[in-house]
Parts: sequence; structure tokens; C-alpha cells
Amino acid sequence: MKKTPVNEQERRQQIMNAFIVHVVEKGFHKASMADIAKTAELSVGQIYRYFAHKEDIIRAVVEQKTEEYLLMMEEFLEKKGWLARMFEPEHEQEFHTERILNMEIKAEANRSAALAKIQYDADHRLTEHAVKLVRQRYALDDETDIRARVQFLVALTDGLFHRRGFFAGPFDAASHQLFQHMLNQLFPDN
Amino acid sequence: MKKTPVNEQERRQQIMNAFIVHVVEKGFHKASMADIAKTAELSVGQIYRYFAHKEDIIRAVVEQKTEEYLLMMEEFLEKKGWLARMFEPEHEQEFHTERILNMEIKAEANRSAALAKIQYDADHRLTEHAVKLVRQRYALDDETDIRARVQFLVALTDGLFHRRGFFAGPFDAASHQLFQHMLNQLFPDN
Repeated sequence: MKKTPVNEQERRQQIMNAFIVHVVEKGFHKASMADIAKTAELSVGQIYRYFAHKEDIIRAVVEQKTEEYLLMMEEFLEKKGWLARMFEPEHEQEFHTERILNMEIKAEANRSAALAKIQYDADHRLTEHAVKLVRQRYALDDETDIRARVQFLVALTDGLFHRRGFFAGPFDAASHQLFQHMLNQLFPDN
Repeated sequence: MKKTPVNEQERRQQIMNAFIVHVVEKGFHKASMADIAKTAELSVGQIYRYFAHKEDIIRAVVEQKTEEYLLMMEEFLEKKGWLARMFEPEHEQEFHTERILNMEIKAEANRSAALAKIQYDADHRLTEHAVKLVRQRYALDDETDIRARVQFLVALTDGLFHRRGFFAGPFDAASHQLFQHMLNQLFPDN
């Protein structure tokens, strides 16, 4: 028996999930409020009670994803094991969906100032958090140097994330070894 | 006085340029053959003489861009100076257009097998060429290690390219120094 959502947060989550399904399947522009409502098993009127525009749904989705990325970033900066996780077969479907969603939002952000701002704020929050963690965790003290290292890490991660589809299967031993070496150069332990 | 195109290659280029203008401005789906024809100053019928589908225009555009990237890759692997070029203010507009075009094509490739194949082939051509150049140029001989290094470089470049908009102005000295260090680790000179 299907659980009926009881509170506002659950309703909002239901709408966000339906939005993701349609953006991934058809692209940002073709994901209509009517489609989203149908998948969320709500009326369009009900959706507007929670989100006034599609943009507000995106904002909520981006903010939620940013919280997830912050946790992954913490985990990574602690153990440097994050990148390899992207290549574990059990995470393939999850990353596939994330990748499409991410690209759709970024592509649309090129044409919407409001969306660019949402994206920029999320990125800023992520990099500032990483800068703080690196400062605490590693033997680095020059502020501009720390920022350069964080930008390097974020660019590399973004690139790997988007290119995941081009890699055939999990990381091989040579890749593991190389990435570990490069990451040790980037974030030297005490 | 406007030069009238005289040969097939010039006509094709004119159509490809018009396609890029509209994809960058409105997105892949909203760039219609009618719009492209108008900007290229041709009739829709004339366009169909050169390209049967929008997909054929993309294929030609991706192939042309791949040739440009191959040259940049050669230049980079010779002098390791390529990444910094992305951050020179005079290339800003050029990279902005490239970035949007690239994202639109990648986003659409998630939903079109034909486009995914075009993208995959271009990527394969680029990485195989890089593997060949690295083998010739650097003191590396293990084939899987060389491939891991090329994947690292391509992911980093992709990430920087897509994130260009998040950097404020040109690279600072700390970034230059860090990137140079990391690239020397990645491709050690003899």
C-alpha cells in the first residue's frame, strides 16, 4: 500500500522527485508542470501551493544536491576516496541521473540569470566549505594557494563526473595509483 | 559588400555558423531549421541540400571542433601552456560560446543515441591522439599508465572549461604555480 505523504516537506520532496524524473527523461524545457503534477500524483494547483515557478523547484533541488555534495566533499577530504566511488558499478545509475540533471541545469543557466545565480550560490557554498575543510585538515596555510587547490579539485571532479560515461567500467589499477598520487600532491598530509 | 559564398564548403560553413548562433542563444530544441536558414540567408530547401537533419549539422560541427581541440591538445602537450589560455580575457567570449554549445550537445546526447555516438567518436579520436602524443613526448612507457594520465588531463580540462564562468578574471599567480606543478607531475619531462 502506497504511503500517503502527510507533511509539507514530504509533498515538496514528491514534487522535486517528479521534476527530476521529467528533466532527466525529456530535458528542462519539455518538463511541464502538468507532467510533474501527474507523476507526483497531485493537481497542478496543489503544486503551485508549494512552488510558484519551475525555477523554485530547481532552486530546492539544487540546494538539496548541494547538501549532498557537501557531505561527499567532507568524506573525500578526510579519506581522498571520493573520486573512486564515482566509478563503482553500484553507483552507476545514480550518477547517470545526477549527471543529466546537472547538465540540464547548467545548460539552462547559460540563458537564465536567475538560474545562473542559483548555480553560482550553490557553487560558492561548496567551494567555501571545501576551503574551510582544507585549511583545518592539511598542512597548507597560504589562502590563495588553498583556493587554487580547491578550484583544481572541483574542476577535476566536475570533469570526471561529466565524463563518467566515457570510461569503460571501473577504474583500473593504473588509474587508482595515478589519481592517488595526484591527490596526495594536491593535498599533502602532515 | 557581402561576399557571396561560391562553393559547397563555404555554404556548409555558413549553415554550421548559423546553427551555432541559434543553439547558443535558444538551446538545441528551439533552434529550428527555419531560424538557421534565415540567419544563413538561405532557404530551408537549400539547407536540406547540404544537411538532411539537424543531427547532420551537429555531426559536422562536432567534427570541426574536434579538429580544433586536437590542435590545442598538441600545443598543450608541447608547452603545457594550454590551460592558462582558457583564462586569458581575450578568449573569454570565444570560450563562452564554445561552453554553451558543448553543454547543449552533451545534454542532448543523453537522450539521443545518434548524438551520443557522434560525441563518443569525437572523444575517442581526441584521447587516442593524446595517448599517441604523450607516448612520443614524455618519459612514460606503460600503456595503461599513459591512458590514465590522459584521462586525468581530459577530465581536468573538461571541468575547467565548464567552470570557466565561476572564476573571477584571469588565473592568479598561486593558481598558475599550482597547475604547473600538477601538470609536471602528470607529464614528467625527461
